Amino acid sequence: MPTPTLADIQAARARLEGVARETPVYRSETLSSACGRDVHLKAENLQRTGSFKIRGAYNRISMLGEAERRAGVVAASAGNHGQAVAWAAREVGAKATIFMPQDSPMLKVDATRHYGAEVVLTGPAIEEALEEALAYVAESGATFVHPFEDPLVIAGQGTIGLELVDQVRDLETVVIPIGGGGLASGIALALRESKPGLRIVGVQAAGTLPGGPGFTIADGIAVKKPGELTMSILERMLDDMVSVTDEEISEAIVLLLERTKLVVEGAGAVGVAALLHDKVGGSGTTVPVLSGGNIDATLLISVMRHGLASAGRFLVVRTRVADRPGHLAKLLTLLAEERVNVVEVEHQRETPDMSVAETGVELTLLTRDPAHCEEVLALLSEWGYPAVRL
Amino acid sequence: MPTPTLADIQAARARLEGVARETPVYRSETLSSACGRDVHLKAENLQRTGSFKIRGAYNRISMLGEAERRAGVVAASAGNHGQAVAWAAREVGAKATIFMPQDSPMLKVDATRHYGAEVVLTGPAIEEALEEALAYVAESGATFVHPFEDPLVIAGQGTIGLELVDQVRDLETVVIPIGGGGLASGIALALRESKPGLRIVGVQAAGTLPGGPGFTIADGIAVKKPGELTMSILERMLDDMVSVTDEEISEAIVLLLERTKLVVEGAGAVGVAALLHDKVGGSGTTVPVLSGGNIDATLLISVMRHGLASAGRFLVVRTRVADRPGHLAKLLTLLAEERVNVVEVEHQRETPDMSVAETGVELTLLTRDPAHCEEVLALLSEWGYPAVRL
Repeated sequence: MPTPTLADIQAARARLEGVARETPVYRSETLSSACGRDVHLKAENLQRTGSFKIRGAYNRISMLGEAERRAGVVAASAGNHGQAVAWAAREVGAKATIFMPQDSPMLKVDATRHYGAEVVLTGPAIEEALEEALAYVAESGATFVHPFEDPLVIAGQGTIGLELVDQVRDLETVVIPIGGGGLASGIALALRESKPGLRIVGVQAAGTLPGGPGFTIADGIAVKKPGELTMSILERMLDDMVSVTDEEISEAIVLLLERTKLVVEGAGAVGVAALLHDKVGGSGTTVPVLSGGNIDATLLISVMRHGLASAGRFLVVRTRVADRPGHLAKLLTLLAEERVNVVEVEHQRETPDMSVAETGVELTLLTRDPAHCEEVLALLSEWGYPAVRL
Repeated sequence: MPTPTLADIQAARARLEGVARETPVYRSETLSSACGRDVHLKAENLQRTGSFKIRGAYNRISMLGEAERRAGVVAASAGNHGQAVAWAAREVGAKATIFMPQDSPMLKVDATRHYGAEVVLTGPAIEEALEEALAYVAESGATFVHPFEDPLVIAGQGTIGLELVDQVRDLETVVIPIGGGGLASGIALALRESKPGLRIVGVQAAGTLPGGPGFTIADGIAVKKPGELTMSILERMLDDMVSVTDEEISEAIVLLLERTKLVVEGAGAVGVAALLHDKVGGSGTTVPVLSGGNIDATLLISVMRHGLASAGRFLVVRTRVADRPGHLAKLLTLLAEERVNVVEVEHQRETPDMSVAETGVELTLLTRDPAHCEEVLALLSEWGYPAVRL
């Protein structure tokens, strides 16, 4: 397959005009001061369908001939690519059939159907979905849209690079998530020629790399390695490729949510995670690409709870009070006097190692930072409520 | 106090250029189809400091003379206004002193300090903070910046209206949060002349209106009524004033978060809540102003959990299984076969009305909608695990 040229990416940009959004770029004061360099965020999570994937999918699907369009398009994906193909097919009036693992989150199934695609639920994992998709393609004559090993798809994703040239003055470093590598290849191709001295860094999720636990909250880039075409481009174009842990990704998600008011999914937050942990190198004006915002609300809740707890802004303790009226109130009054916010109180009457005259209490407290947590624990013990941190 | 003119608002816009962001407007497909009209969101939550308040604060503070600037500025606020005054004062090189109730969330205190202001923690409520602020003003000669009863503040907020004229074609209805009324007055003044037929609707939080419970998650507009100046403008300018409950606001927050990838605080979500509950009237292209995004992360978690539960996407049940190895696994296998996602399992060995041979289990399940919840409850009972919904 040929590597896309700058002209291919410019042509893609013309096709996408009025179709994809030119997503905004924001300077983040918090991140700039945390990272010691000017950090501007490319908010591609605000793209239609919630991720960059429609750029490539539309660029590919809009180039189909009349007969191909009638035969329809096919993808195998439980996530953003499936939604993007469904959306792009609807835009050009083609039929889309999306194959998904049978355990795909119902919300993603619904979103894909909502864009007018037929969803086929197949075996347990994406491999089976891919197999069935290819079998369907062979028999139906529909066009398979690959999520990254396709010059038109790569060129579509590359349009983000062209936008960055227009949007950010003095761009020195770009940080791009890498799963299959389509996004990073496209952006790198778009930027290499026009910005020769630019530093381009790819970020992978450590969880699904060889040696990792095999799982990551950055499901959008949960791929063992990039494709052949994308890898050949990345090897020539990238200055560095680094990885971040789920812990680091969670922290970045919470920071983006609280400080920039943007919902960013795991895959979209890896660039910020890498910056916060000083893995990017280079200097000057730096742009992490926030590639998407499709994070499941229940996962987001877990990530936020986890992030707040590890930042010490949440303290869950178990202690005991005398099981007589007024004793819990006394403890709560003491906490209030110290201006400690109590979020939740849970009684646990039946705890094995406790006398009948006592009752267990689980308290969730709002704290400021790890030092404040220690302070509160010391106070509780001083007041006669020795507490175990949970 | 004089009512600001269109020329005052235009002057404010010129002053704010390069200072405040011209925040983007997005068409929301989800909201447009849910509301049966074209809904475009004015994403003012992406404004610097996370709310519109810097527009008014900067317009006021940048007009101070050299001597006034040296004497500094003062505000009484536990929220967005305090942060905005701190931020605007730093921009013009003035000293800011912000009076806050002593129980203000530590994060807001920190954010305000972060912008360089001196924070004075005073009595239990905002009334005491205001009193102390005014006493400090009398003695120090600093300038008090009112959050809404000030023509320059109102003119600053009005710049949002001028942006809307440029950003949205065929604007027919605008929906604006109302607390003190500065935002709504300003926008209405900006739009009335240039768009004579426009429908302008203000939305209040029912929780803090007379007859309400006295509490609202929309803390940014938790004011009993607008000011004298703002009310006189609103009475002339608004087509209607409606209110929404905290339940309706929560739903809007979750929808904005999941579908548009924007973090919006309670006050910022009231317009969308009113639209979703058909309280706005009018028709055609409609713009709710998402006034801010400063929602505490712990509150956001509660709102999301609540929103998911009431949408039936979360089912928490208690049931019992035989307290022998393998019995819980059997139940989980049955659920897995029905493709029900289990988020949390909690054992409760000590439940009063249970035989020794049994153990209580609390399950948190991911479900699709209320009908799916009923289905799962029926299945559990069919399998011999009668479950109580919690």
